[in-house]
Amino acid sequence: MPDPAILDRLRAAVEAGFEKEVAFLQDLVRFPSLRGAEAPLQDWVHRELAARGYAMDRFTLADVPLDGHPKAAPMVDADPARSVQVVATHRAANPTGRSLILQGHIDVVPEGPHAMWTHPPYAAVIRDGWLYGRGAHDMKAGVAAMVFAMDAIRAAGLEPAADVYLQTVTEEESTGNGALATLLRGYRAEAALVPEPTGHAITRSQTGTIWFRLKVRGVPVHVMVAQDGTNAIMSAYALINALYAHTKVLNQVGRDDPWYGATDPIKFNPGIIRGGDWASSTPSWCEVDCRIGLLPGTTPQEAMAGVEAVVREAAKGDSFLANNPPEITWHGFQTDPYVLEPGSEAEAVLAAAHQAVHGGAMPERRSTAVNDARYYGLYMGVPGLCYGPRGEGAHGFDERTSLADLRTCTLTIAAFIADWCGVRAAS
Amino acid sequence: MPDPAILDRLRAAVEAGFEKEVAFLQDLVRFPSLRGAEAPLQDWVHRELAARGYAMDRFTLADVPLDGHPKAAPMVDADPARSVQVVATHRAANPTGRSLILQGHIDVVPEGPHAMWTHPPYAAVIRDGWLYGRGAHDMKAGVAAMVFAMDAIRAAGLEPAADVYLQTVTEEESTGNGALATLLRGYRAEAALVPEPTGHAITRSQTGTIWFRLKVRGVPVHVMVAQDGTNAIMSAYALINALYAHTKVLNQVGRDDPWYGATDPIKFNPGIIRGGDWASSTPSWCEVDCRIGLLPGTTPQEAMAGVEAVVREAAKGDSFLANNPPEITWHGFQTDPYVLEPGSEAEAVLAAAHQAVHGGAMPERRSTAVNDARYYGLYMGVPGLCYGPRGEGAHGFDERTSLADLRTCTLTIAAFIADWCGVRAAS
Repeated sequence: MPDPAILDRLRAAVEAGFEKEVAFLQDLVRFPSLRGAEAPLQDWVHRELAARGYAMDRFTLADVPLDGHPKAAPMVDADPARSVQVVATHRAANPTGRSLILQGHIDVVPEGPHAMWTHPPYAAVIRDGWLYGRGAHDMKAGVAAMVFAMDAIRAAGLEPAADVYLQTVTEEESTGNGALATLLRGYRAEAALVPEPTGHAITRSQTGTIWFRLKVRGVPVHVMVAQDGTNAIMSAYALINALYAHTKVLNQVGRDDPWYGATDPIKFNPGIIRGGDWASSTPSWCEVDCRIGLLPGTTPQEAMAGVEAVVREAAKGDSFLANNPPEITWHGFQTDPYVLEPGSEAEAVLAAAHQAVHGGAMPERRSTAVNDARYYGLYMGVPGLCYGPRGEGAHGFDERTSLADLRTCTLTIAAFIADWCGVRAAS
Repeated sequence: MPDPAILDRLRAAVEAGFEKEVAFLQDLVRFPSLRGAEAPLQDWVHRELAARGYAMDRFTLADVPLDGHPKAAPMVDADPARSVQVVATHRAANPTGRSLILQGHIDVVPEGPHAMWTHPPYAAVIRDGWLYGRGAHDMKAGVAAMVFAMDAIRAAGLEPAADVYLQTVTEEESTGNGALATLLRGYRAEAALVPEPTGHAITRSQTGTIWFRLKVRGVPVHVMVAQDGTNAIMSAYALINALYAHTKVLNQVGRDDPWYGATDPIKFNPGIIRGGDWASSTPSWCEVDCRIGLLPGTTPQEAMAGVEAVVREAAKGDSFLANNPPEITWHGFQTDPYVLEPGSEAEAVLAAAHQAVHGGAMPERRSTAVNDARYYGLYMGVPGLCYGPRGEGAHGFDERTSLADLRTCTLTIAAFIADWCGVRAAS
């Protein structure tokens, strides 16, 4: 439980810095940091954090031994050498507290047709207490919160009494390789906080995720039988339907899962489709980029084998696919599910900070999507806390973050750092 | 019936020129004259025909008043100013015979994945009597045949005793605007021959064709219900299925058609699909480029109204589309069906030439696709003869034309010209 006097000093410091924090978040949102295009934003973050006096480390995914690592996910559509990671270190003199990683991803997902947005997706417009933009919510608000939580501690005349690593990573939306790269670079701590926009709830569990690309190719049947649907686009549709049916079965089998129960937590999504070259030619190819989840207790390899079996079986029943077996490319996520085991000291300290700021117990959520916290919990052996601000519209139109919640979240994180790491008068 | 002596002279001339004709066809095939990229080939054809002494005319679709013409089709994905047409005129001194248009299109459809081809699609490889390549069959072989039929007449020391227009056009595979442009430019004749690769059969009838693009857009439902299929890709499939059902009904209604009977002549094809931006985001958009046929007796406007009604009705039954009505863009063909009425003098002359070369009656075919001959029959009021060489793989892989059939077809066309236009000793 944070010292009330320190909490007051932190609250005043967050307040005093909040205008600057919002401007910082607007700057973050104005970078269209789509996959493969994050480097300019990371360069800017590097300058911002260097100016604060942190020890800086900037490296790419090509600088760490990802190749052949059992937890590295394939990067089919992105170049590791262009994927820049930033780590800013507060190195405590004579550390007495517990070390901490604060990590946020700065990659964003595609914004879709701009006409569907009320405000341009990279304009960072503020209206009625909301800041709008692709990534404002997922998760640049969290990045701003963790940077300004540290700023608030310093502005209050304090400094953490333990090592703190501020990390901004890429690839959270596609592979997780950015987070993995920080581990391969050697960064370790006694806890990690990933301030994804959870609406001030602790993430108790996350399902795993598999990405795959279905490739249907082959010599099409004659246009004389085109109306029978024996074309690559229609055959891809048969595979999609089979995968929906597979998902239903998986959710039935998993209805006694201790973390999710009968909530149909496994989501299948055909997210991208492309196929054919000409309206008057029977399409000879079709590709579908898909995502499917997996429950705790299932390995990515098991989930992948399941997808392979379903596609193989469905192909047998399609006159086109039977002669032209579809290919599956694993082109992204191969993610383990993760459960934050209840009862850790780190979670208790976070819950106390939450209680002090919000005046109530910290709620918990069970996520049907992934976040990077799994790396710290599963591969580093420390609590991976996923907790952060409140917003709406992740991956959708009019994505936005609540500025009032950004303020309370920043204070909560500052209080958590102060309690977990300890604070002392700044040197 | 062509004069036997003249036929012998033409046969010898075709024979003597055949090596050059095959080389000419190879040159044609080596141009990747996809839609929008036909101009370099048309420039080359222009030089080739100018060198033969024809009066030349070269113009683009922007040079004729297509805009607002009732039979012009919309060109959504192509620039009229880049679409070059070529007309080479043999202007007879004191014409005594009947004038003739010989017309071929030089646009080709996309070749699809090159890995599916035995020989590279633009390499014009010859093997075992076949010339391979995109467009070799549809319809550059016919273009070579008409050019070298005229060459043979000259090489035999003769010339047509009437005006002959050799025309190479674009847009046959997408709108028909190339052929229409030659009419708008003013070209007329007493008959027209379009040597599409019919395998030496006369085309008695052709169905019409409509192109349309379905655009599904909207705010997707939350990923929490992603497994219910309420996403733009799945909603597009619902529309496709409704259009397949519509096609089945149209074929049932049309089963007493005098030209097609119960052969299911109306073909529906979803030829291109694209949608979504990210495997882990519910897709908010999907577009499908489609083609559907129409029977003689139906107007394009009626067929379009039918598509609109089906899409509107299908949208009502889809939870996504009900709130986000799909759009239809008419982005190409709006083609009338055409029947070559039996009994014309032009057809009789062609049948006689066929008989003389092939030793049997000219067979007839009923096509479920379009060709440019309709322009001459429907809008110029003269017989639009569609008859040409033999090949395989139109719009598919390993498209190829038979060289033996190219030879006989060239002779047949030369004999037809000689009989229809009359010939006299070259001046």
